[in-house]
Amino acid sequence: MKIAILPGDGIGPEIVAQAVKVLNVLGESFELETAAVGGAGYAAHGHPLPEGTLALAKAADAVLFGAVGDYQYDTLERALRPEQAILGLRKQLGLFANLRPAVLYPELANASTLKPEVVAGLDILIIRELTGDIYFGQPRGVRECPDGAFKGQREGYDTMRYAEGEIRRIAHVAFQAARKRDKRLTSVDKANVLETFQFWRDIVTDVHQEYPDVALEHMYVDNAAMQLVRAPKKFDVLVTGNMFGDILSDQASMLTGSIGMLPSASLDANNKGLYEPSHGSAPDIAGKGIANPLATILSAAMMLRYSLNRAEQADRIENAVKAVLAQGLRTVDIYEAGTTKVGTEEMGNAVVKAL
Amino acid sequence: MKIAILPGDGIGPEIVAQAVKVLNVLGESFELETAAVGGAGYAAHGHPLPEGTLALAKAADAVLFGAVGDYQYDTLERALRPEQAILGLRKQLGLFANLRPAVLYPELANASTLKPEVVAGLDILIIRELTGDIYFGQPRGVRECPDGAFKGQREGYDTMRYAEGEIRRIAHVAFQAARKRDKRLTSVDKANVLETFQFWRDIVTDVHQEYPDVALEHMYVDNAAMQLVRAPKKFDVLVTGNMFGDILSDQASMLTGSIGMLPSASLDANNKGLYEPSHGSAPDIAGKGIANPLATILSAAMMLRYSLNRAEQADRIENAVKAVLAQGLRTVDIYEAGTTKVGTEEMGNAVVKAL
Ligand SMILES: CC(C)[C@H](C(=O)O)[C@@H](O)C(=O)O
Ligand SMILES: CC(C)[C@H](C(=O)O)[C@@H](O)C(=O)O
Repeated sequence: MKIAILPGDGIGPEIVAQAVKVLNVLGESFELETAAVGGAGYAAHGHPLPEGTLALAKAADAVLFGAVGDYQYDTLERALRPEQAILGLRKQLGLFANLRPAVLYPELANASTLKPEVVAGLDILIIRELTGDIYFGQPRGVRECPDGAFKGQREGYDTMRYAEGEIRRIAHVAFQAARKRDKRLTSVDKANVLETFQFWRDIVTDVHQEYPDVALEHMYVDNAAMQLVRAPKKFDVLVTGNMFGDILSDQASMLTGSIGMLPSASLDANNKGLYEPSHGSAPDIAGKGIANPLATILSAAMMLRYSLNRAEQADRIENAVKAVLAQGLRTVDIYEAGTTKVGTEEMGNAVVKAL
Repeated sequence: MKIAILPGDGIGPEIVAQAVKVLNVLGESFELETAAVGGAGYAAHGHPLPEGTLALAKAADAVLFGAVGDYQYDTLERALRPEQAILGLRKQLGLFANLRPAVLYPELANASTLKPEVVAGLDILIIRELTGDIYFGQPRGVRECPDGAFKGQREGYDTMRYAEGEIRRIAHVAFQAARKRDKRLTSVDKANVLETFQFWRDIVTDVHQEYPDVALEHMYVDNAAMQLVRAPKKFDVLVTGNMFGDILSDQASMLTGSIGMLPSASLDANNKGLYEPSHGSAPDIAGKGIANPLATILSAAMMLRYSLNRAEQADRIENAVKAVLAQGLRTVDIYEAGTTKVGTEEMGNAVVKAL
């Protein structure tokens, strides 16, 4: 089985190196091949998603992705900026289902800015549609405003859209995920204002007929943003569109206070997937050897579970991560008095040892 | 001066009654006229925003609004549902600038689900554009998908748009508000993905030239949702579009744990405005006499300050509210051991007495 390794920018290479180390000690015969992406792709080949990188990702059974973005690429024109790589990979690989768990590890309960009683035991799964919505909808651009009070001025515009089949397939993923958990699904929309999301609500309600054992609730996105602050533990699985999911999944990961621990998976219709930490490229700490590699290591575990059919190996890695936390090892982002501060590499080595 | 009183549904009438009582003891000769809106408008006249109500709102110098929405109207077709009233009023009155303070009263520091050190002293102002964006952009609807992998299926779609003049005027409101506070403005966008918000960023940057004394920072909406959880006190004023503002302003009010205390103002180009509590109609507790009237009373204070040119009266009301909190009076939503639980009416009377 072939795994494409795309380290990217900032802390990407450091944290991916630890995950690769972990993959290499599992005793599996994976073929790992590395390629440049993001700013690194632009630097090496003049494009954030070089042709060779895309070809590798397409040919592989799964993609392990670090993070993209660094200061020196901020002033490039949009089509060449690092984040185009991740948007391009999602779209070109058809990775429509983004799974983002927000889990609070008992050892890290204090890391949250929320009161312990509000977040202790938090374990929610946000499922974000990832290849549709206003992220990709055409037409879009800057044009002359065609009507209304500002007619004739310049205006920026974008198109939000969701087709029936797009909503159906993400709804199926969400109901099936809920079935494996507490059987409760919250579909987040803005049906009171948007045509797209009234349609979304109608289709999700229809798909629900095939999952009578799952309790479905509809919630407006503004209310969901409130409930994630007020009582996040009330949720089990949330499903929403690309734009709302971008906002809510980041909000939810921050509730744990330890976004450096949170993996994510982006899957296509055949469970091929791209796996990446929920955090970004953190260029301010790149090269210092202090970044937390655990989100990337846990992303590799998700990869083993969802794309490579190696659930036991995924369990092994997840248990090894729990073990190093129990040993009191902490990178600086999750450090607190009474624990042992370690660097990126030490943390990776500790996971390898625990395996 | 004429004030339109639109109590609406659910707890609306109870809380507005307290604010009216407060207005009546100020010794000003305001002319107050009440009309039905939302579900009540539909029940009385077959439309959530009856013609007479709209005419009254247009003729008045300011509008005091309760809240709309109740269970029995949930199944109406969208054009007749209660929330159409508030969307219609915003659009028809040109109320493009929504000001939503998120303030944590020292006495209520425990009400938040966030740790006291994270939110103590919180005082941020969210400025949300309120008459543009994907809320009103045409075209929108459900149609046959014209292209791509789902061609021929049904799809829901909406149009996000912002014209230059629309962005300029809300940017001016935001810079001016920041000038009266800590002189720091965060403009929230999604310029890395949306054409509308790259354009937004460009125009806000341009308007900034007129306000060199205000520090401007641009932040992506997903990051803003994270920072509001991680370190909300770092913000001073935030400005954003209608859709992102809907989500972030609700998230921010919930950070305080006392959304029953938070007023809001929606202003036109001449400081005529509509004033409403940040919370909703809470039909589950309507008629029980337990709703917190303070957000509505504080909305009346904002009305005196922004639309009626009575800043001293606004100060008086705000001080009266602080006084009743200091006396230990609490409605059930903000009650904690050691304070005195009171009902809606007692709370209103206490404010009147403190005046
Ligand atoms: C980098 C950006 C384009 C991306 C997104 O908005 O999807 C990121 O925020 C994410 O959530 O992966
Ligand atoms: C009721 C709804 C249409 C409205 C909005 O989305 O603007 C509400 O959520 C608000 O924020 O005032």
